[in-house]
Amino acid sequence: MQSILSRVEIKQRETSIMSARNAFYAQSGGVTAVINASACGVIETARKNPNKIANVYAGRSGIIGALTENMIDTNKESAATIAALMHTPGGAFGSARYKLKGIEENRAEYERLIEVFKAHDIGYFFYNGGNDSMDTAHKVSQISKSMGYPVTCLGIPKTVDNDLPVTDNCPGFGSVAKYVAVSTQEAAMDVLSMAETSTKVFILEVMGRHAGWIAAAGGLAGKNPEDAPHIILFPEVPFRKREFLKRVRECVNQYGYCVIVVSEGARFANGKFLAEAGTRDAFGHAQLGGVAPVLANMVRDNLGYKFHYAIADYLQRSARHIASDVDVRQAYAVGKAAVRYALQGKTAVMPVIKRVSDKPYRWTIESAALGRIANKEKMLPRRYIRRDGFGITAAGRRYLEPLIKGENYPPYINGLPKVAKLKNKPVKPLTGTKFVV
Amino acid sequence: MQSILSRVEIKQRETSIMSARNAFYAQSGGVTAVINASACGVIETARKNPNKIANVYAGRSGIIGALTENMIDTNKESAATIAALMHTPGGAFGSARYKLKGIEENRAEYERLIEVFKAHDIGYFFYNGGNDSMDTAHKVSQISKSMGYPVTCLGIPKTVDNDLPVTDNCPGFGSVAKYVAVSTQEAAMDVLSMAETSTKVFILEVMGRHAGWIAAAGGLAGKNPEDAPHIILFPEVPFRKREFLKRVRECVNQYGYCVIVVSEGARFANGKFLAEAGTRDAFGHAQLGGVAPVLANMVRDNLGYKFHYAIADYLQRSARHIASDVDVRQAYAVGKAAVRYALQGKTAVMPVIKRVSDKPYRWTIESAALGRIANKEKMLPRRYIRRDGFGITAAGRRYLEPLIKGENYPPYINGLPKVAKLKNKPVKPLTGTKFVV
Repeated sequence: MQSILSRVEIKQRETSIMSARNAFYAQSGGVTAVINASACGVIETARKNPNKIANVYAGRSGIIGALTENMIDTNKESAATIAALMHTPGGAFGSARYKLKGIEENRAEYERLIEVFKAHDIGYFFYNGGNDSMDTAHKVSQISKSMGYPVTCLGIPKTVDNDLPVTDNCPGFGSVAKYVAVSTQEAAMDVLSMAETSTKVFILEVMGRHAGWIAAAGGLAGKNPEDAPHIILFPEVPFRKREFLKRVRECVNQYGYCVIVVSEGARFANGKFLAEAGTRDAFGHAQLGGVAPVLANMVRDNLGYKFHYAIADYLQRSARHIASDVDVRQAYAVGKAAVRYALQGKTAVMPVIKRVSDKPYRWTIESAALGRIANKEKMLPRRYIRRDGFGITAAGRRYLEPLIKGENYPPYINGLPKVAKLKNKPVKPLTGTKFVV
Repeated sequence: MQSILSRVEIKQRETSIMSARNAFYAQSGGVTAVINASACGVIETARKNPNKIANVYAGRSGIIGALTENMIDTNKESAATIAALMHTPGGAFGSARYKLKGIEENRAEYERLIEVFKAHDIGYFFYNGGNDSMDTAHKVSQISKSMGYPVTCLGIPKTVDNDLPVTDNCPGFGSVAKYVAVSTQEAAMDVLSMAETSTKVFILEVMGRHAGWIAAAGGLAGKNPEDAPHIILFPEVPFRKREFLKRVRECVNQYGYCVIVVSEGARFANGKFLAEAGTRDAFGHAQLGGVAPVLANMVRDNLGYKFHYAIADYLQRSARHIASDVDVRQAYAVGKAAVRYALQGKTAVMPVIKRVSDKPYRWTIESAALGRIANKEKMLPRRYIRRDGFGITAAGRRYLEPLIKGENYPPYINGLPKVAKLKNKPVKPLTGTKFVV
């Protein structure tokens, strides 16, 4: 009797496995400290639904891995390894700066994508990225349908730039915001304690080519006029040299020192980046370089103060060691929600974070149509920037503060963070054709 | 009977309080993430010995506070505030880059110091700093004796540069080492995951004008040839452009990317700093600036790889959020030991850290004569540097690894580290004279 039941069970399982299809997951664009937490959310949730999703294949170097049929079999990874993605920075499967063109310009790429998806019975496409990626996911959803092989397409938000619309914030941003706020506070204490005989002006250059979200986060380090940072320079506020130097001098006179957080995208009224303000190397070549040294030289030449500057660069977006707990949990939640939505039959949507309340901070996940998100940028609202243009408002603080809350520490071994060591075993190619990107 | 005994006790206490003298504590030179842990060790230990040390006065802006009679009454701080110094970066009382000259050159400064010490019944001088400060403490010890007002002088080691002799390592170094190792590991994971379509060469510039201790710590991030950092540039190894570029190309060809940790003190065979290699601003002025952009431009001009660079600057030495637990404990221990030695009647000594074993790491504190330490620099031994000059050896790793062990996290409030908020109440001046530094 038991053996008969078992046979029925086996049959049922076979049927469900047969009806289960594969999923393709890819990371796209600049990585963050928590993009792998989203990967973890996708894979763990898929593994809980083996009757619907047989396997998650990850693109090696993002979407390029699909085009070149270079995919990673995540089923070969243990549950412990997948769990360790929660505290592993970088992109575990490789990410890519690669934007699919419009279908009219490059139909071959879309056809190739569908060819690979078909060959591997991929019915779900999870694309973890920013604006461009949401546009790609949207297009793949439309094109797959028109090609008679409809794929369930889900976007998963990710960007330190925090510039996706509809969602309250973007996974990845909270951790870089925390890094910048903590670093500003710490460095300011260092500078203040030595300003009498040493450095009086300290400049921290942070990311944000188009929007000042990350620079704004530096403002969390202080509340009162005497607190650092004394000046924030946003891309949204045209740089005024005279006003800037006046403010630096005032800070040094009043507080003994001046701490500046500057966005790499800070620019003049004519739109030209400060970073391009004409430094040249020994051969007279225009030097690519930071905005921090440009400001530092301006301070030296006009005010004569001793200065120092730091350029956080990739340190800020890979600093998993000081990740925001809220950010880590949201990154996981959007990965998990994407799989749930897919299994509910939703397509061409992205899970978005909806803020329920500021204090206490409460949030939930909803779905939003990719068409509302693709190719739209959410700029830092003017009401988050102080009237004088050099700091954040109470409204800005209210928005930003919850996003850096909580510390989500990785485990350590021998003094260094322990990270997931993936096997990254390839999926056997099945198309029999090559595709060059 | 009881009342008579109590009177005797009271008398004894009065005598002991009357025999208790004041202590002066000053922070000197560049601050560290843990110099306040040493201050905590001094003050807490002094408070446990009220019969010997009545009060600890701290110099506002270091030794300048003694010369200008601008001292802070640490007795006005609660036990909780003093305990919070353990996790507070920067210099709580202010530090100074101010070196007392030799007695022949400026006798007035030493006389003033003794004048202030006399006026405030200061019998103990604790000087928390590097090489120069140990020299000053040593001189004050000798001069105070010759002036008929012998002061017990103790050095307390502190320097991120790790260049004090005799001691196994210097409090402050372990934490900057941990910051650099962790940051190198994290940034490398970011770069690796995107190297196919984006940045191939990443450069992290770290401190260390004279010695490569901090750059060497970056080497802890990887063990195998394929692991980052692929190249470390030490001040101790003359920079060879051709070899450097060859190695960068090899790494990109073999591993897909190349991570470089460079000491700000990296130099050519002729002794000239790479950082001075001739970048000019728009007006043709020599631009002060980092070594990282110089290397980046070299890579771009010769190899054409996409690059990024980070300059850690003050972030590395103020990063209390990722302090090494070993470092925090040693910083406290040297402060505590200094007071104990002083109470044992030792003078002109500094507590040094003695390594008992590497694995498991065991250490103890001993005292060493200031004369053995003052004005001597401990360089990174050649046997810690790989034969090819681009990395650390197993011996180097054995030395460095224990120093970054353990995470000593500060408490957080609203997503930011909570720090000690000192009252820093001034001690009433008693000399009646002014002194200008």
